[in-house]
Amino acid sequence: MEYVHKPVFLLTDFGYQDAYVGVMKAVMLGIAPELQIVDLCHSIEPQNVISAAYVLRTAVPYLPAGSVVVAVVDPGVGTQRRIVALEGERYVLLAPDNGIATLVLQCDRWVRAVEIAWQRVASTPPSATFHGRDVFAPAAALLASGKLCLEQLGKQVELSALVQLALEPQVRSDGIEAIVLHRDRFGNIVTNVEAARWGIAPFHGWQCRVQDVTLPIVRTYQDVPSGAPVAYVGSSGYIEIGVNCGSAVERFGAEPSIVLIPPSKASTSPE
Amino acid sequence: MEYVHKPVFLLTDFGYQDAYVGVMKAVMLGIAPELQIVDLCHSIEPQNVISAAYVLRTAVPYLPAGSVVVAVVDPGVGTQRRIVALEGERYVLLAPDNGIATLVLQCDRWVRAVEIAWQRVASTPPSATFHGRDVFAPAAALLASGKLCLEQLGKQVELSALVQLALEPQVRSDGIEAIVLHRDRFGNIVTNVEAARWGIAPFHGWQCRVQDVTLPIVRTYQDVPSGAPVAYVGSSGYIEIGVNCGSAVERFGAEPSIVLIPPSKASTSPE
Amino acid sequence: MEYVHKPVFLLTDFGYQDAYVGVMKAVMLGIAPELQIVDLCHSIEPQNVISAAYVLRTAVPYLPAGSVVVAVVDPGVGTQRRIVALEGERYVLLAPDNGIATLVLQCDRWVRAVEIAWQRVASTPPSATFHGRDVFAPAAALLASGKLCLEQLGKQVELSALVQLALEPQVRSDGIEAIVLHRDRFGNIVTNVEAARWGIAPFHGWQCRVQDVTLPIVRTYQDVPSGAPVAYVGSSGYIEIGVNCGSAVERFGAEPSIVLIPPSKASTSPE
Repeated sequence: MEYVHKPVFLLTDFGYQDAYVGVMKAVMLGIAPELQIVDLCHSIEPQNVISAAYVLRTAVPYLPAGSVVVAVVDPGVGTQRRIVALEGERYVLLAPDNGIATLVLQCDRWVRAVEIAWQRVASTPPSATFHGRDVFAPAAALLASGKLCLEQLGKQVELSALVQLALEPQVRSDGIEAIVLHRDRFGNIVTNVEAARWGIAPFHGWQCRVQDVTLPIVRTYQDVPSGAPVAYVGSSGYIEIGVNCGSAVERFGAEPSIVLIPPSKASTSPE
Repeated sequence: MEYVHKPVFLLTDFGYQDAYVGVMKAVMLGIAPELQIVDLCHSIEPQNVISAAYVLRTAVPYLPAGSVVVAVVDPGVGTQRRIVALEGERYVLLAPDNGIATLVLQCDRWVRAVEIAWQRVASTPPSATFHGRDVFAPAAALLASGKLCLEQLGKQVELSALVQLALEPQVRSDGIEAIVLHRDRFGNIVTNVEAARWGIAPFHGWQCRVQDVTLPIVRTYQDVPSGAPVAYVGSSGYIEIGVNCGSAVERFGAEPSIVLIPPSKASTSPE
Repeated sequence: MEYVHKPVFLLTDFGYQDAYVGVMKAVMLGIAPELQIVDLCHSIEPQNVISAAYVLRTAVPYLPAGSVVVAVVDPGVGTQRRIVALEGERYVLLAPDNGIATLVLQCDRWVRAVEIAWQRVASTPPSATFHGRDVFAPAAALLASGKLCLEQLGKQVELSALVQLALEPQVRSDGIEAIVLHRDRFGNIVTNVEAARWGIAPFHGWQCRVQDVTLPIVRTYQDVPSGAPVAYVGSSGYIEIGVNCGSAVERFGAEPSIVLIPPSKASTSPE
């Protein structure tokens, strides 16, 4: 894989109230003025590593080959948690080793990982609270512009030793118990159940119980009346709960109980 | 008109909580790595096609010649609504055919329109809920990089057959009845009354009745005391209602009744 | 200093609900299609010049040499306040002359300043309310692309005549009285006390009294239990108040009283 001015994609919880992201870009352009830098998302809920893991997972299938992804949701900044660079077959990921890579570690193929030593990318020690600027930005710019290769960033670490979170759905007697990975701008609730993996397709008898409501799995918002809740296969392949022309978060709260019910156990007429 | 790496401008209601916009950019850069992609706005109120029509209208006079504009506020995603590409004299617009083009159809000159067939821009059928990624992004990148021209995107449609919303002010006996097109970050309320078209200028005797308050049309916020409501010709040429160092939305609500009163019918001393 | 396609950095309070920023970029790309335009921040609290002065101050040390910075937080738009271009040793700043440059005037070295005449950068008079689009954007693009140099923008003004705000901490008998410069996305409160300048370092006996709580100055959030307030040297060198895994703004309000207490006057056991 070559790193000559590959695009850099940024995913953080830095938000838009401050110049945190702008300063990261300034640092990168100081190293590589021609760099193409793209915002994936900076509005991850502060310190919500699970939501970041999901958003990262949904974005990576669409990255140009050779992209460098910087994912900084980092409640442990300033502590001894590692910063790692993971080389995959299609892209490189720079992230704190805190589980943010859990879902992409499962779905993509990985070649190697290194622990980034700040001495390799900066001339002064990083601040205690802004490694995005002091470590991630220079590392990404040096990699993406081909001035350094992955092995030069630090010592190799085992892929199997990377932190992974428990984000698997749990199979119960009555169905698959889901957890909430993410809530989007429209108030849609994204679960951790990948439709393809569990054989779930719209209009095939699967149901989704959200709190005390049971919904059939359909195709899109318009398959239900305006204002009605709807369960469907989201654009990233995960089961989502929405409300047509409304908000599932307002209807069900931020963390509703969700169970996916296979056709064999579904009631014939969901209420 | 040539399409060799023309800039692409994006207008959506996808917001900033997710990677939706970032993923659209990733798809575009995978097709055309050198593309210049610019955010016009991604915070249109979810599914508010009227607000999007206004924001689009205000932006297009400033676009570089040959720009490609992608406007995705699309409550009908996944249904049979068409996706169209409109070639104007100065720019190309890609949008759902849902009225979002209403105001630019009236103010700009148009050459032709086609209905985009997803088969021309993608190798797999689009998802049900994210045509921004699956249809609009590849279509825009192919157009802007010159890899496809407009005619290759799909079959031609009549310009006169495009969906248009009723956004004209209504003339009444006591003045011009306005509706709210848009509310901006500062709480300013933008009406559908274009000053130049109705002969409205600051300090020329026109008044604006907002709920039960009657305001003279002035030039800028500082023409009234701090905290006072103000009616003025906004930077896009539409009559706006504001509050100096405050918010008109907080003062009058999101959808106040608004009537523009010509000098001949104005009271001499507005309260 | 050369201005051949130097990057342009934007700092405004225009927010993300509208196309204001996108339109500025459109204007700039119409003048210089290859321009690299970077968002520093657009979510400065509306018309909060002090917060903008702080965010600008924190960003400039990281700008590539030769950058053009456009800082538009401009409650006086449409009045007679001047628009100025300041040439520093490392970057050029375009801003309204309203105090937004206060902190960078103190920390950076400046060569000259001019008052921008709109006639030098535009062919039609600016609107009353959107000088970002009508004056700042063309001026920045012309400068950054080398089509104009600073002297061509307007007549020279004295650096000492530029508006400056009183943002200095006040020394009292019991310590240094701080004011709030900025609140960030995480609810951290940034004070106007620069640690290095006042000899403040973590774990050296300095304390920070916030309302009725007295906190030692520590290094990072993790130096206190989850949910506890914390005073530390922020990533920009100013003393900040935070709450580990929480929000200082929620805990103390937006404008708490803050006093920095030197070791000689500190109580031995802060509560």
